[in-house]
Amino acid sequence: MELFEFKQVMVVRRDLDMGKGKIAVQVAHGAVSAAEEARRTFKAWWDAWLKEGQCKVVVRAESVEEIFQLEKRTKELRLPSALVTDRGLTQLEPGTITCLAIGPGPSPLIDSLTGNLSLL
Amino acid sequence: MELFEFKQVMVVRRDLDMGKGKIAVQVAHGAVSAAEEARRTFKAWWDAWLKEGQCKVVVRAESVEEIFQLEKRTKELRLPSALVTDRGLTQLEPGTITCLAIGPGPSPLIDSLTGNLSLL
Repeated sequence: MELFEFKQVMVVRRDLDMGKGKIAVQVAHGAVSAAEEARRTFKAWWDAWLKEGQCKVVVRAESVEEIFQLEKRTKELRLPSALVTDRGLTQLEPGTITCLAIGPGPSPLIDSLTGNLSLL
Repeated sequence: MELFEFKQVMVVRRDLDMGKGKIAVQVAHGAVSAAEEARRTFKAWWDAWLKEGQCKVVVRAESVEEIFQLEKRTKELRLPSALVTDRGLTQLEPGTITCLAIGPGPSPLIDSLTGNLSLL
């Protein structure tokens, strides 16, 4: 048995030049949005994830194309997710896609999408 | 009028040696937990904050004492908040307090607590 049966993974673009505070905001946007989607549509997963202590992992993508491919697979699997687009008030151009949040969902299912990605 | 009438602020301890991924996870934990408290107990603020695009700001504290002082004021003002304690699986000792999330709430009220803190 895994330590956490449910998890949420945030995939952050490494090809953008974001500071640590900026990254934290993008990850938190994704986490809140995808968790809220899960609460509405995958209530049992959301409950179990919160009860376990809301396991979160942050990994990296090398490009926006990698983010789009992951989002496509996430949608195919009907997992809760959130694509984060920056407003561009600081550091980035408006509309820049910065992060994809996947889950919360069962760890093996999430890992089938993101298990090969390195920690940020 | 401010750009965002409602905001959520995460105060991160700078005296801990956390990497950017670790920081992002702590901030996201706080954001999800405090947002969920707001959804349950300050629904109008939560709705307005989401509608505006869930403004989030990450600032820094120099010590755990500063976090505790802020938490005390936050509780006195009856604002939604979440104190984040790390499990200590990586980088930190178990039970280390890493972050305080405040809000979402009206920006002037949140700023009265955190407006003097520097961005992370």
